[in-house]
Amino acid sequence: MAGNILLLTLLAISVPLKMTVAYEPSPLQDFCVADTTSPANTSNRFGSSPTPVTVAQVPGLNTLGVSMARIDYAPGGIVPPHLHPRATEILTVAEGTLDVGFVTSNPENRLISKVLQKGDVFVFPVGLVHYMRNVGPIPAVSISGLSSQNPGLITVPGAVFGSNPEMPADFLAKSFQVDQKVVDYLQNIF
Amino acid sequence: MAGNILLLTLLAISVPLKMTVAYEPSPLQDFCVADTTSPANTSNRFGSSPTPVTVAQVPGLNTLGVSMARIDYAPGGIVPPHLHPRATEILTVAEGTLDVGFVTSNPENRLISKVLQKGDVFVFPVGLVHYMRNVGPIPAVSISGLSSQNPGLITVPGAVFGSNPEMPADFLAKSFQVDQKVVDYLQNIF
Amino acid sequence: MAGNILLLTLLAISVPLKMTVAYEPSPLQDFCVADTTSPANTSNRFGSSPTPVTVAQVPGLNTLGVSMARIDYAPGGIVPPHLHPRATEILTVAEGTLDVGFVTSNPENRLISKVLQKGDVFVFPVGLVHYMRNVGPIPAVSISGLSSQNPGLITVPGAVFGSNPEMPADFLAKSFQVDQKVVDYLQNIF
Amino acid sequence: MAGNILLLTLLAISVPLKMTVAYEPSPLQDFCVADTTSPANTSNRFGSSPTPVTVAQVPGLNTLGVSMARIDYAPGGIVPPHLHPRATEILTVAEGTLDVGFVTSNPENRLISKVLQKGDVFVFPVGLVHYMRNVGPIPAVSISGLSSQNPGLITVPGAVFGSNPEMPADFLAKSFQVDQKVVDYLQNIF
Amino acid sequence: MAGNILLLTLLAISVPLKMTVAYEPSPLQDFCVADTTSPANTSNRFGSSPTPVTVAQVPGLNTLGVSMARIDYAPGGIVPPHLHPRATEILTVAEGTLDVGFVTSNPENRLISKVLQKGDVFVFPVGLVHYMRNVGPIPAVSISGLSSQNPGLITVPGAVFGSNPEMPADFLAKSFQVDQKVVDYLQNIF
Amino acid sequence: MAGNILLLTLLAISVPLKMTVAYEPSPLQDFCVADTTSPANTSNRFGSSPTPVTVAQVPGLNTLGVSMARIDYAPGGIVPPHLHPRATEILTVAEGTLDVGFVTSNPENRLISKVLQKGDVFVFPVGLVHYMRNVGPIPAVSISGLSSQNPGLITVPGAVFGSNPEMPADFLAKSFQVDQKVVDYLQNIF
Repeated sequence: MAGNILLLTLLAISVPLKMTVAYEPSPLQDFCVADTTSPANTSNRFGSSPTPVTVAQVPGLNTLGVSMARIDYAPGGIVPPHLHPRATEILTVAEGTLDVGFVTSNPENRLISKVLQKGDVFVFPVGLVHYMRNVGPIPAVSISGLSSQNPGLITVPGAVFGSNPEMPADFLAKSFQVDQKVVDYLQNIF
Repeated sequence: MAGNILLLTLLAISVPLKMTVAYEPSPLQDFCVADTTSPANTSNRFGSSPTPVTVAQVPGLNTLGVSMARIDYAPGGIVPPHLHPRATEILTVAEGTLDVGFVTSNPENRLISKVLQKGDVFVFPVGLVHYMRNVGPIPAVSISGLSSQNPGLITVPGAVFGSNPEMPADFLAKSFQVDQKVVDYLQNIF
Repeated sequence: MAGNILLLTLLAISVPLKMTVAYEPSPLQDFCVADTTSPANTSNRFGSSPTPVTVAQVPGLNTLGVSMARIDYAPGGIVPPHLHPRATEILTVAEGTLDVGFVTSNPENRLISKVLQKGDVFVFPVGLVHYMRNVGPIPAVSISGLSSQNPGLITVPGAVFGSNPEMPADFLAKSFQVDQKVVDYLQNIF
Repeated sequence: MAGNILLLTLLAISVPLKMTVAYEPSPLQDFCVADTTSPANTSNRFGSSPTPVTVAQVPGLNTLGVSMARIDYAPGGIVPPHLHPRATEILTVAEGTLDVGFVTSNPENRLISKVLQKGDVFVFPVGLVHYMRNVGPIPAVSISGLSSQNPGLITVPGAVFGSNPEMPADFLAKSFQVDQKVVDYLQNIF
Repeated sequence: MAGNILLLTLLAISVPLKMTVAYEPSPLQDFCVADTTSPANTSNRFGSSPTPVTVAQVPGLNTLGVSMARIDYAPGGIVPPHLHPRATEILTVAEGTLDVGFVTSNPENRLISKVLQKGDVFVFPVGLVHYMRNVGPIPAVSISGLSSQNPGLITVPGAVFGSNPEMPADFLAKSFQVDQKVVDYLQNIF
Repeated sequence: MAGNILLLTLLAISVPLKMTVAYEPSPLQDFCVADTTSPANTSNRFGSSPTPVTVAQVPGLNTLGVSMARIDYAPGGIVPPHLHPRATEILTVAEGTLDVGFVTSNPENRLISKVLQKGDVFVFPVGLVHYMRNVGPIPAVSISGLSSQNPGLITVPGAVFGSNPEMPADFLAKSFQVDQKVVDYLQNIF
C-alpha cells in the first residue's frame, strides 16, 4: 500500500497524465478521519481535537486542490486563533453549537462571528485569522472543506511567541508595546 | 439583508477589495444546510436528498473557490451517476455506510469504488462520473467539500436522454448502438 | 540536438517534470495529425475518426495549457455524447456540414445546438456533454483547440454502462428507473 | 440578438453562474471564420489574411480561456514576426505547406523552425516571437487554437518602430546600435 | 482624472480587453511612493513608515497581479510581525542594514531569519508571519514586490487582541493559557 | 541545516521539483543584488546593467510566483525595448530620473510613457514591449518586482534579427518591407 502512495505522488504533479495506471482496486483516497461513535480524544488544554485529511496524510489528493478536516470539541472546547496561508475554509456543524469568527484585514480588523447550530455553514476566507469554540452543553463536531490539498496551519500567537528559534524578546516587546517581562512570560507558554 | 447580498456579489468579483465594507454584524456566509435531528426528506424515487451550499445559495462565497454539500440517504437510497464540471469533491460519511465510486476517463473507464464507514473520506476528481449509495441498514448522511463556489452538476443519463430540447433519437440510437425504441424508452423516463 | 532539449526545458515554465525524457531527436512539437488527401479511416460503427494531439502524444505540450484535435466524419458519421473534464473546446468546420451541440448543467439541461457550415466556429464549455454529427452529403472534417494539454475524454454512456468493473446492475436500474434487463442490455453493448 | 450578447458579457465575468439564462435557441458561440470555397482576400503586402475568433468578436468566449484563428496565405504569403502576450498557440496546416518558427528567450535566442505539410501541428509558447510563411506553390490555410479568450497581438517591429507616439529616434538608434537615419527609415515604414 | 481611474477599474476586471481606450497621455500607473531626499516620517512608536502601492492606491494595477511597497526605518525601527493573506513578498534593502525573518507553518514554527545588507534580497512566502527591523546605526529603506495587486495586511497580535469587536477575553485567556488579566492588558494595548 | 531543507520543501506548495538540490547551508532566499556604494558596471554599449533575482539565480523562489531586478544606469544609459513573456513588472526609481514606457498591443500600438523621479512607480503589463532610459544628469537605479519566478526576457530586435540560426533574410525583408540590404545590415548588428 505504501508503494501505491508513493506512485500516486509521483504521478500527481500538475497533470494526472496517466492516473488510471496507478489506481488500484483498493484506492487510497479514502482515509479514516474519525468515528463519532468512538470520538476523538479531546482531553487536552484546548478541549478540542482536529483530524486533518490533506496531501500530507493522503498523497493522492495532490493536484486536486481540496482537503478536509474534522474537529471534535469537548463542552467548552476551543480552537485558538489560527489561519491557513493557502486555503479558504468552509465549515458545517455536525453536532452541537459552535461560536465561530474571523477577523478582516487591516485597517478594519473587524470580527465577524456567529453562533452556529447543527447544520449551519460558515466560511473563513484564505489567510484570515479565525477561531471556533463549543458554546453548547454537549460535545460538538465540525466538518470543514478547504480549497487546497496543502492548506498549512499557523497558530497565531504560536508563530510569534513560540517560533524556533525565538524572535528576540526586545523586538517583540517593542512590537507589542509591552514590558519585556510580558514577552518572556508569553514565550515561556508557547 | 437582500441588499447586502447584492452588494457582496458586486464587490466580490475577482478581488475582495474592500470586502469588510459590506460585512454586517450578521454576515451571510452562514446558511442552514439541514438539521440531522429533523432530517431532509428522502421520500423520492432515489431515496436521497442533496442540500448544496454554493454561490447560488450564498453569494458571499464568490471568489472564495469553495462550496459544500450535505446529502441525506434513506436505507437503499442512491445518488445516480453524475459529475461536477468545475470542481473536485471530497466526501466524508457523517452517518451510516456508503458505497461510493468514480470512473476514470478513456480508454480505461476503470471504476474505483469503496464501501465507506462513518468517518471515512473519499475524493472524486474534477469532471469524473461518480455515484454514492447507502448500503447500510440505517439512514446515512455525507458531507462534501467542493473546490469551486460554482461546481455545477450534470446527471449523466439526464444530460443525454433528458435534454431540452431532446437530442435526435436516431442520433442517440446510433451513439449507443441500440434500437431506436430503447432510446424512445429512455427519453420518456428522463 | 541535445541543445534543443535543454532549451525547451528552460522554456518550460512551471512543471518540466521529466518532460525531456520524452523528447526525440526530431523535435516533437510538430506532429502529423492526419492528411485530408489521405483521410482517416472512418469505417467504424460511428463513422468518425478522432486524431488528438495532447500531451500524451506530444510531451512538449506539457505546461503549455493547450491541445488540438482533428476529427474526420463519413457522411452520417457521428461523435457520440462525451465531455472533457479539464478543457473547453473550440471547434471549426474545415470540410462539410456538422450538427453540433452541448447540454447545459442542471437543472435546465438545455440543449444548445447549431448546424455549422465550412468555416463556422462553436465552443463547448469545460465539462459539459457535447456531440458532433455529419449532416451533409459528403465527408466532413473539424479542427478543435482545447484549453488543456491533457483534456481527458469521457464517453457518457460508456463511463456509466461500460466501466471496468461494472457498476452494480440494480443500482443502475434504480438510477435510470428502468427494468434491470435494460441495464443488462446496455452493459452488454458498452 | 445584440441584447443577448451584452447579457452574456455581463454574466460571464468569472463564473458562468446562470449562463443558461442568457442562452437562446440560436446561440452566439458560433461565428463565421471564413469559407475556404470563397477564400479570404490575401491581396495585401504580406500575402496573408488572419481571421481571429476571440472574445472581441464573440463575447460568449469570456471566461472560457480559449480562442481560435484561421489564416489564409497566398503562395509566398507571410505572417511577419509577432507574439501573443497572453496565450500559447497551437497550429495545424489545413492546406498547403508552411515554414513556421519561434525564437526562445534570452540569452539563447534560438530559432526553432519546421516546414509543415498539410495535417502537421506546431506549438508557439506564450509570449515568444513567431512567424509563418507559405513556402509551397499553392495557397495555404492554417487553423490555430489559443489558450486565452483575449490573446492579444504584438507585431514586433511595429511595436518598436510604429508606436503612437513614436519612441525617440535617438533612443532607438542607441538601442539597435544603428545610425539614426536607419531608425528614421524604419519609422517611416511602420 | 478621477474619471479615468474609475474607467480603468471597470475595464480591468479579468481581461484588459480594450485597456488602451482608457489610457491617457498621463497614465495613472505611476505614483509617488516616497522620495528618499525627503524621507517618510518614522516618528511613531515603531520607528517605521510603510508606503504601499496596491490596487487600493492605483486602480490600474487591477488584474496585473503585482504591487509594491517601500518601507522607511529609523535606527532601531521595526515592522512588527504581520502577514499578507494573498501575496508572497520579495524584499531588497535599498539603504542600511535589516534583520528580517519569517516563521514556517505548524508544527515546526521554525524562524528563518537573516541580517541583510544594502542590496541583499529575501523572500516571505504567502501567508507566513514575518518581520523586519533596522539593526544598523543609520536610517534604512527597503523596497518590496508583492505577487498580488491586493495583498492584504494582517498584524498578528492586532488581529487577535485588537479586533473590533473584541474576541471574548476568557476565550483568549484559554487560547493562550494565560490569566485573563494578561488578555485584558493586551487588549488595552491593541 | 538538513532540517531547514526539509522544512522548505514542505513549504513549497506545488512543484518542489528538486528545489532542495540547489539549497545551500546559507539559505539562498537572500542574494546580493548589488550594492549602490559600489555600483554595477555600466560601461557597455547601452550604459546599463541589470541584476536579476529569479528562480534561475535563487531556486528557492520556485512556486512563489515573484522575482526582482535591479538596474543601474549611467547618465544617458538605456535598456532597449524588450518584454517579459510570463510576468508583469512594477518598477520604482531608487536614484535619478528615468523615462520609461510601454506599447499597447494591436491595433493601437499606443506608447504610454512617463518621466519618473526618485520614488515614482510605473507598471509594465505582461508581454508588452517596454523600455527605460536615464534622462537625468547622474547615474540612476531602479528596482522592479515581477509577477513570476521565471519571467523570461525577449529583446525585441534581438529575437527577430539576432536569432540562432537566423530567420531568412528575404522573409525579414518582406516582413518589414525593406530592402534586403537593410536586413543584412541589422542581422550583422544583432
